[in-house]
Amino acid sequence: MRILILGGDGYLGWPTAMRFSQRGHDVHVVDNYLRRRAHAEAGTDSLMPILPDLPARAAAWHEVSGREVGVTEGDLTDPQLAQDVIGGFRPDAIVHYGEMPSAPYSMKDRDHAVFTQTNNVVGTLNVLWAMRDLTPDCHLVKLGTMGEYGTPDIDIEEGFLEIVHNGRSDYLPFPKVPGSMYHLSKVHDSHNIHFACRVWGLRATDLNQGVVYGIQTDETRLDDRLATRFDYDDVFGTALNRFCVQAVIGHPLTVYGTGGQTRGYLNIVDTLRCIELAVLHPADPGEFRVFNQFTESFSVMELAEIVQKAGVQAGLDVGIQPLDNPRVEAEVHYYNPAHTKLLDLGLRPHLLSTELVGSMLSVIERFRDRVITEHIDPRDRWRPAT
Amino acid sequence: MRILILGGDGYLGWPTAMRFSQRGHDVHVVDNYLRRRAHAEAGTDSLMPILPDLPARAAAWHEVSGREVGVTEGDLTDPQLAQDVIGGFRPDAIVHYGEMPSAPYSMKDRDHAVFTQTNNVVGTLNVLWAMRDLTPDCHLVKLGTMGEYGTPDIDIEEGFLEIVHNGRSDYLPFPKVPGSMYHLSKVHDSHNIHFACRVWGLRATDLNQGVVYGIQTDETRLDDRLATRFDYDDVFGTALNRFCVQAVIGHPLTVYGTGGQTRGYLNIVDTLRCIELAVLHPADPGEFRVFNQFTESFSVMELAEIVQKAGVQAGLDVGIQPLDNPRVEAEVHYYNPAHTKLLDLGLRPHLLSTELVGSMLSVIERFRDRVITEHIDPRDRWRPAT
Repeated sequence: MRILILGGDGYLGWPTAMRFSQRGHDVHVVDNYLRRRAHAEAGTDSLMPILPDLPARAAAWHEVSGREVGVTEGDLTDPQLAQDVIGGFRPDAIVHYGEMPSAPYSMKDRDHAVFTQTNNVVGTLNVLWAMRDLTPDCHLVKLGTMGEYGTPDIDIEEGFLEIVHNGRSDYLPFPKVPGSMYHLSKVHDSHNIHFACRVWGLRATDLNQGVVYGIQTDETRLDDRLATRFDYDDVFGTALNRFCVQAVIGHPLTVYGTGGQTRGYLNIVDTLRCIELAVLHPADPGEFRVFNQFTESFSVMELAEIVQKAGVQAGLDVGIQPLDNPRVEAEVHYYNPAHTKLLDLGLRPHLLSTELVGSMLSVIERFRDRVITEHIDPRDRWRPAT
Repeated sequence: MRILILGGDGYLGWPTAMRFSQRGHDVHVVDNYLRRRAHAEAGTDSLMPILPDLPARAAAWHEVSGREVGVTEGDLTDPQLAQDVIGGFRPDAIVHYGEMPSAPYSMKDRDHAVFTQTNNVVGTLNVLWAMRDLTPDCHLVKLGTMGEYGTPDIDIEEGFLEIVHNGRSDYLPFPKVPGSMYHLSKVHDSHNIHFACRVWGLRATDLNQGVVYGIQTDETRLDDRLATRFDYDDVFGTALNRFCVQAVIGHPLTVYGTGGQTRGYLNIVDTLRCIELAVLHPADPGEFRVFNQFTESFSVMELAEIVQKAGVQAGLDVGIQPLDNPRVEAEVHYYNPAHTKLLDLGLRPHLLSTELVGSMLSVIERFRDRVITEHIDPRDRWRPAT
């Protein structure tokens, strides 16, 4: 298949590109290095060193695997670029990771909020209009987030639910109560994509993904130059990955609030498998399909305790330090989201274990000298100081 | 009260400004003349002549009423302008009409879709951030649309509904299935405003308005120079107003498809009363309140038949011409939206009648020489030609 990967320079985008390439698909990646620039501006960086740009990564991949990955360096918010790359490559599937992915970044101030929403919404609108006009049979596999749902007091379904009301019923989009300007941007995307499927007959899969953890995939293990980025800072780091870095450097694990916030999580190798399953089993024309993409749920405190236990087994002294929560979110809540659709397609989850955390700790240990400690604690608060 | 009216040059914005001013409130209006420019570009115009800009309108209003209305000519997507006007005027309430309001405009092509969504979403985000930082107790009264809901097969509630699911229940936002890139922009706004109330404690009323008809209000009647604009073209005209113009000039009434599309409607004088009721009874701090703002529902064919009947009574020969529907929408559907909250606050509806349509026809008759007939039939189609 011809597979276009938007955001192909990212934590998940680059390993996804290599995986599809390794399996013989024709892969083209697009990225404008937004994440690299945001790191450079903030004085933060990936824990693992990564090659300087996509051409260098594609060249290393070619050297290791003998396979070609096409590269476009450019910005999806440029409509001409979106048209050129989609019309030129004519993909069978587009895997769309190409957005600003950080909730804290989006909550810094007005400029960051507006940038996050316009960057994400306009980039995706450009993709939708280009698909409509140039490749209407192409399948869009779009990365959303479980955070679109918030934490309602009912079971979360996969995108839609049957609502019975006043003696009638309809199958409608699951109501969304997202928790940041970033999460809102993904809700806007979901509505726009749903519309494009209903009205233009496009086919799309919206993957509401949980928090991803892990460092290595089958392809990154082949050569250090194929490493994917690994973020642990306050803006781009996510709970488990950040805790692992903190454990290695002797920083107490920064639990926000009481740590009862429960979310879905999955291993990076399961992300790649989920994307592959979605691409190999496309939505029907006109279908807007939503999968909840995670394998198990943990509270933040449970995660911290797992990392603490694995750390102790590795001979580390790991403390847990609850911080005043910079976010506005429920710290005690019901959480029971469905996630059977990817299992039904064949996903076999790699579940979290202290052994897996232990292997992450040992990889991180190799790069501990690269850790920038001053950007681990949260700086961006959801509410103005009072 | 100090009342800031965004979009104060529009069909509803200008009459709203005069009404609040007439009742002794301190009123300031903002507009960037987006609608006037879009008309100039398209070669269309308001049926009634209107004064050339807001300073001229405010001067005429002062001459007639002795009252002052403040004016800012500028664009809400400029964050500095939003801050300056909100921080300078320090309103108790902001009535926000200041968006691109046309579904056909938003469906023309990618550029118009992206413009509509970014213009509306960014302008509203700028207002929310400025309120957060400068006037956190101010009440935002935001114009949404009944079109955000689409036509679900269950009763539509006012913004939220109790969902019972798998033995649990929660009160959640009503699912939205909007029908154009424009309607989507209003859904995005609603999610953003809901977030600002939940997380920043702002207070807001989202008015999901039906289709407005009518020409005159108590204030526009005082002097011809106080007329509000009246659009009947394919882009900015709406069903009933457009039918009335067609009846006067002998153009068959353009019903899209079979005409079974049912929507909520209200008289422009009821719009003004609804806005006043919302402003005088503000939402609580942190509350995101949604009112469905319409007084009665009609199918498009029912509207056409009412106009036809009123036209015959006025001695006009009125035909009805079903057109191939340029939109993608259900032409036969269930439609039963709640609209009790504004009635509970004291709204007494002015319902549609052949007499009222007759009075519209006689006003239109005075300006029939200004009708631009070549831009009445629809040009913008929801789906690409096949």
